[in-house]
Amino acid sequence: MQQPKLGLITPNELALFLDYYELTSTKADFDHGNEAVVTQEYFVRQLPFGGYLIAAGLEQVIAFILNLRFEEKDLGWLEATSGPDFKDGFLDFLMNFKFSGYIYAVPEGTVVFPNEPIINVTGPTLEVQLLETYLLNVMNFQSLVATKTVRMVDIAEHRTIVDFGARRAHGRDAAVLAARAAYLAGATGTSLVLAGKMWGIPYIGTMPHAFIMNRPNELQAFREYAESFPHNAILLVDTYDSIEGVNNAIIIGKELRERGHRLQGIRLDSGDLVSLSKKSREILDKAGFEDVKIFVSSDLDEYRIEEIIREGAPIDGFGVGTRLVTGANFNSITREGGPSALPGVYKLVERIGKDGHPIPKTKLSTDKVLLPYRKQVHRHSDEDGNFHRDTVSRWDEPIADAEPLLIPIIEKGRTVYGFPDLEESRKYCQSQLTRLPKPYRLLADTPIYPVKLSPQLEKVSKVA
Amino acid sequence: MQQPKLGLITPNELALFLDYYELTSTKADFDHGNEAVVTQEYFVRQLPFGGYLIAAGLEQVIAFILNLRFEEKDLGWLEATSGPDFKDGFLDFLMNFKFSGYIYAVPEGTVVFPNEPIINVTGPTLEVQLLETYLLNVMNFQSLVATKTVRMVDIAEHRTIVDFGARRAHGRDAAVLAARAAYLAGATGTSLVLAGKMWGIPYIGTMPHAFIMNRPNELQAFREYAESFPHNAILLVDTYDSIEGVNNAIIIGKELRERGHRLQGIRLDSGDLVSLSKKSREILDKAGFEDVKIFVSSDLDEYRIEEIIREGAPIDGFGVGTRLVTGANFNSITREGGPSALPGVYKLVERIGKDGHPIPKTKLSTDKVLLPYRKQVHRHSDEDGNFHRDTVSRWDEPIADAEPLLIPIIEKGRTVYGFPDLEESRKYCQSQLTRLPKPYRLLADTPIYPVKLSPQLEKVSKVA
Repeated sequence: MQQPKLGLITPNELALFLDYYELTSTKADFDHGNEAVVTQEYFVRQLPFGGYLIAAGLEQVIAFILNLRFEEKDLGWLEATSGPDFKDGFLDFLMNFKFSGYIYAVPEGTVVFPNEPIINVTGPTLEVQLLETYLLNVMNFQSLVATKTVRMVDIAEHRTIVDFGARRAHGRDAAVLAARAAYLAGATGTSLVLAGKMWGIPYIGTMPHAFIMNRPNELQAFREYAESFPHNAILLVDTYDSIEGVNNAIIIGKELRERGHRLQGIRLDSGDLVSLSKKSREILDKAGFEDVKIFVSSDLDEYRIEEIIREGAPIDGFGVGTRLVTGANFNSITREGGPSALPGVYKLVERIGKDGHPIPKTKLSTDKVLLPYRKQVHRHSDEDGNFHRDTVSRWDEPIADAEPLLIPIIEKGRTVYGFPDLEESRKYCQSQLTRLPKPYRLLADTPIYPVKLSPQLEKVSKVA
Repeated sequence: MQQPKLGLITPNELALFLDYYELTSTKADFDHGNEAVVTQEYFVRQLPFGGYLIAAGLEQVIAFILNLRFEEKDLGWLEATSGPDFKDGFLDFLMNFKFSGYIYAVPEGTVVFPNEPIINVTGPTLEVQLLETYLLNVMNFQSLVATKTVRMVDIAEHRTIVDFGARRAHGRDAAVLAARAAYLAGATGTSLVLAGKMWGIPYIGTMPHAFIMNRPNELQAFREYAESFPHNAILLVDTYDSIEGVNNAIIIGKELRERGHRLQGIRLDSGDLVSLSKKSREILDKAGFEDVKIFVSSDLDEYRIEEIIREGAPIDGFGVGTRLVTGANFNSITREGGPSALPGVYKLVERIGKDGHPIPKTKLSTDKVLLPYRKQVHRHSDEDGNFHRDTVSRWDEPIADAEPLLIPIIEKGRTVYGFPDLEESRKYCQSQLTRLPKPYRLLADTPIYPVKLSPQLEKVSKVA
């Protein structure tokens, strides 16, 4: 018998957010004096959907690395529970741990492609390998959600996309991180109040079905809601009969007008959203409520949104839940899918030899791509600023007429990057998207964006 | 320009973990003096896979409810950001909020079926509706992962299942909650050290490929690792050539023996796991290492594990990542899938009328099932204790020869339940699984477990 535990992670214990093999291999390195300088690289070999990725999560990665300290009591716990092989020396090393290396990364909101380095981390192997699990966890999830969201935002054009997914997110952190990634990617806001507070993003909501079912009838429920929220009433019309619901909303709209207010909108949450939205628009317009907006929700994703828009539904905004916050790898039209995860990896690509020269690292047992050496991505744009092609090169290899994408974030363990706020990242992400030519943003028959290897990389990849 | 933020949720701000519509509808209830006593129910209409569900997450739900308080500064923020309609009276109500109602639920680890109540919450509507988003978030995710894991544990029989998924989990909380749910469901442990600390569960690990690539050759890497971990070396053999790796592991196994230790195991992480494990076993046995275990990982789930076992692979344990921590709704054999989420809902089912009599609540606009009234689930078992069928009844309706599944957790706002520790819940979950007859646990052609309505519910559901 025990008190129930919330189980929220505290910042102080976050240093233990690592897979045990990171600790064992670091200890073996420590025991054998392996203090080689290495580079490990975060990249994604294969995308779960579409042809491009929006990088997101860097801020939470850097905050972690800058504050990465092992607490004495956590090390005591580790010593007590990890078996007979952990010794004092290594625990002392952990006690004094502080990242001293270099991090280069693309800013959050950048469009990237498979096999391109997104973050590279250079420093003593003893330090670099301890970052793996956390970096992957945060980057994989936020990049997945940002990419999923930007596809919806892109398809929806001027219509709004709102994150409604907290109830289906994978735990509490997933709900607030998904709201962040979605906003960064162009969503208008979130239903989750806490996410609004944590990230300063707009939070919005209508009413639950229970609110209506809890009253003698729908009209009374709408009326009470509008009395409490004269400035901001969006009425949920589908509890009993959606068209009857729209008629009730019009009655309330008139009452609000008489009091000098106006009905903001209605929301459809079930049924055939195309025909219901058309009929609703017609009824609203006929009653003189051209300014009342129509919001919809109900198992939406980019494929459904495209279909709904193509069929001419007069919808002003989409509330998207499950498929946004899980970054669902699922095509609701073809019913094909896979696990909802971004399989990004963090791999050793280079080690500085005793003579100071870099030694390329690549794994040979499978046919998986692993480009050796510390690398840079160069983006070539056309005269209008549209992305034309990328060149992946060795870190210091000069590439003409292109913009290097990875920029300095941490040098010698200290931040050298002014973190933009979320609004700035959001604008940057939108500008990235507009520079990516339309064909690469299609939901089907997407061409592959050209990513070439530099002359120096071409040479080594042929050898491997 | 700002300091980078970790964005971890603190317990004090958790009251804001709600969708905004919960606040707006509660305010409208408050404004109109709606203090009716209601029951809302957590249940799942449709399972993403299989025919049964393992309920998990109750402990984190109850910890939240018992500690649910709005901080003054959070209410100040709410007042400042939520528009002109929030008034003092309602903010005072939130300031003094404390849950005063009743919660009945099935213990964590219980086998349940679609449309059965898993948690019911009874109390003033002003309180009950504020719990929705958090309850759904935590129950949906942990139940999803527990259910996914128990299927693997069941198929794997005596072989171990270990959670390797932190890097693909949806944020930091998802990684520790998934490790908890997986352990509850019978996994042997987790790779995530922090989850080990938070929940007291075994954490385990081998070595990363980078550790090997960072050294002149594999044999030296194995040797250094074994020197550092003589009591607990599991060698990753697939960096270059898996069979060569096994031969190197044997050399190290002999060296460990000479020092009075023993090699624990090898791990295969790529390639044809069936043929490689057979060949590895043969080589190990021939060299006198019958006691060295073979662990595998690489895009596993219950379908792949079943296939691997059916083909006679001599594997002792499976490390499962992505498809465990995301509760992937994806069949790796048929390639069919859907979003990785459990679509559990929290619905109003009953309101106590002014005369003290319960009024059934059901939503009529769609064909989705919503059984009215506060309810109980009764489980009928055969003489051997095997689950035979369930009856869902009204709360107080007597059902003979059956065990009621929902038990008192909170009464009048206070805990009346002695929370078991995770080990106890794990044992209970295993005992539940053994009582569920084999046909219901098959991965394909699973029959539907009989869930009947009680006479009283049958009557009202016909009326509706």
